[in-house]
Amino acid sequence: MANEKTLQQNSKNSLPKVGILGGGQLGRMLLQAAINYPVETYVLENDPNCPAAHLCHHFVLGDIQNETAVYNFGKQVDVLTIEIEGVNETALFRLEAEGVRVYPSPSALHTLKNKILQKEFYQSLNVPSADFCITQNLEELKQQVDFLPAVHKINSGGYDGRGVQVIKTAQDIHLGFDAPAVLEKMVDLQQEISVIVAVDHQLQTTCYPAVEMVFDPQLNQLDYQICPASITPNQQEQVQSLALKVVKGLNSPGIFAVELFIDTAGKAWINETAPRVHNSGHHSIEANYSSQFDMLWRILLHYPLGNTALIQPAAIINLVGAPNFSGPAIYQGIDEILSQPDCFLHLYGKKETRSGRKMGHLNILAKSTDQLLERVKELKHVLQIVS
Amino acid sequence: MANEKTLQQNSKNSLPKVGILGGGQLGRMLLQAAINYPVETYVLENDPNCPAAHLCHHFVLGDIQNETAVYNFGKQVDVLTIEIEGVNETALFRLEAEGVRVYPSPSALHTLKNKILQKEFYQSLNVPSADFCITQNLEELKQQVDFLPAVHKINSGGYDGRGVQVIKTAQDIHLGFDAPAVLEKMVDLQQEISVIVAVDHQLQTTCYPAVEMVFDPQLNQLDYQICPASITPNQQEQVQSLALKVVKGLNSPGIFAVELFIDTAGKAWINETAPRVHNSGHHSIEANYSSQFDMLWRILLHYPLGNTALIQPAAIINLVGAPNFSGPAIYQGIDEILSQPDCFLHLYGKKETRSGRKMGHLNILAKSTDQLLERVKELKHVLQIVS
Repeated sequence: MANEKTLQQNSKNSLPKVGILGGGQLGRMLLQAAINYPVETYVLENDPNCPAAHLCHHFVLGDIQNETAVYNFGKQVDVLTIEIEGVNETALFRLEAEGVRVYPSPSALHTLKNKILQKEFYQSLNVPSADFCITQNLEELKQQVDFLPAVHKINSGGYDGRGVQVIKTAQDIHLGFDAPAVLEKMVDLQQEISVIVAVDHQLQTTCYPAVEMVFDPQLNQLDYQICPASITPNQQEQVQSLALKVVKGLNSPGIFAVELFIDTAGKAWINETAPRVHNSGHHSIEANYSSQFDMLWRILLHYPLGNTALIQPAAIINLVGAPNFSGPAIYQGIDEILSQPDCFLHLYGKKETRSGRKMGHLNILAKSTDQLLERVKELKHVLQIVS
Repeated sequence: MANEKTLQQNSKNSLPKVGILGGGQLGRMLLQAAINYPVETYVLENDPNCPAAHLCHHFVLGDIQNETAVYNFGKQVDVLTIEIEGVNETALFRLEAEGVRVYPSPSALHTLKNKILQKEFYQSLNVPSADFCITQNLEELKQQVDFLPAVHKINSGGYDGRGVQVIKTAQDIHLGFDAPAVLEKMVDLQQEISVIVAVDHQLQTTCYPAVEMVFDPQLNQLDYQICPASITPNQQEQVQSLALKVVKGLNSPGIFAVELFIDTAGKAWINETAPRVHNSGHHSIEANYSSQFDMLWRILLHYPLGNTALIQPAAIINLVGAPNFSGPAIYQGIDEILSQPDCFLHLYGKKETRSGRKMGHLNILAKSTDQLLERVKELKHVLQIVS
């Protein structure tokens, strides 16, 4: 491993070795939580300046989509996890067969990575999820005019909003994907909710309190996230029980973020599930006894699951690169944000900003959700990331 | 720098470079807090397996007491700080003269590192501090029988309880130091208090709420620490104002931990001051809006000072190596500790345990100090570090 950043180890006295596929901000925050535990950490990523590169014992330069790179990386560790779905699955199946613990399991990852399989999985579990049909190409999409308005989701390779296209009418069909995809009926939605579920190596589970993802109707993008969500106790039960049903069906240790819709009639629908720590759980670093990152280490190291309770209501404001700026990041307003008594700033150490690039997030704590909503309004435009 | 762990940097686009002298647990927790900020980190330490080695951008193998090593290390960075007092001062004075920001300032460090100078400094400020005399060797100590009972503190090189000896009667004089030392009258003490003070680059200050350090009278060692301290509002004001007076007298940016006694008459006395993050502030990682580690980054990077308010009352239990064990560390009871709803475990990643070695700490949060005291009693012996 020529590009490995290695510290000398005493072989007689070894800590558990954990590998992370991907070195982005999720890996970075995961390694921040690892500092509390006795563990030796490995990261595989093809960018030596990635956010997580300098925070592990062993940084390995390589492509997480390359079978040989992932396999060789995985052979060095006791446990392997991911911080992004787009990793080579064949290597993971081989590693699992050879006794490496892979959390989430390659089969859970496989089901969730493919939108078609994911929808079929929800169908098999009989959980409410939007009606859908499968289109192999644009030609097939054209035949589904009666199914519109709908959302076209590419089967594989979508990430962070890429690979998703709203098709309202026949006029929009050219915007669809000329590749295998799912066409989902639009839910008449009222609220978007995320429930993070933790599953330990014995498949015991625990849920975090539901988070509400609030979208800006004008910009059509995530505005902020707040926990607890403004839903009824009955809905809270409904979304947690649906999320648990989905995650239990995957039969895999790990952290899973289940996104749900609540429609205008108040009913919950499963939207989609990610087999990893998730943007909607970032408040948990300060707001919960055991953060989602702490929780994943407990799972990877076979420790007991942590306490998911909220210490205080919390909000997350995502800090993305301002439109029309790209280049070395400048954090305008950082002094004003750091002067606030109730804010926790998390920047991801990315040197270059781009329009919409995730550069950090801001957690805000308050005694009540009303107070929190006030603070979100006051603070959401204070920090601008420009170049 | 042959032993430097370097990631490629884009020179056009550089982050502020901060160096830390020392790579122990304080450096480790400092680097954990750095992850929230855009900064390039350097550590100098002569143990490549030290707790902080794998958490920085650039690990430099070298002796923090060696002038050339410290000077060369410091020339690479914009700001230099310490996580332990025992560093080469000559290099720091040279670096400061050449424009490197050194926080704490070399002169503040110099005053505090030498117990004689430190006592004279308190005298010059006219703050209450135990009466003392100076002894250059054992011969001079013998002449101070009338001063006993007293505490003999070696002038330089003491750390973590080493270099401090109680001399109750003439019979104990042989236990004293045959080197320059301070002989301090024993204060008839009721409580021990620590106040952490933060000072920014413009010498603005803020205080953390006072912490009470509770000693086990039988073992004569620190039992636990609790915040807020069980002192009157008047005493809280007294200790904060004394701590501020001392720290302002040092005229240096940085984090300073001021330890005080409260005597049986309720009066506060300055004991000693450390120019760095401190064991008595470890609860702040979860219990305060801005932890002592977060605060030091704000100071180093010239950001605004953070909010020192407590989110919840908190206790710290130090996890030290069990007596009579040395070798690879085994954490007995870790599952039981990690099953508690209100605990935050921080292990320092040291592979080898030894009797009394600082291996980690446990932070506990509670709604009230009464509840906290209950929990400390229940939890303080659960985790044993053996080999």
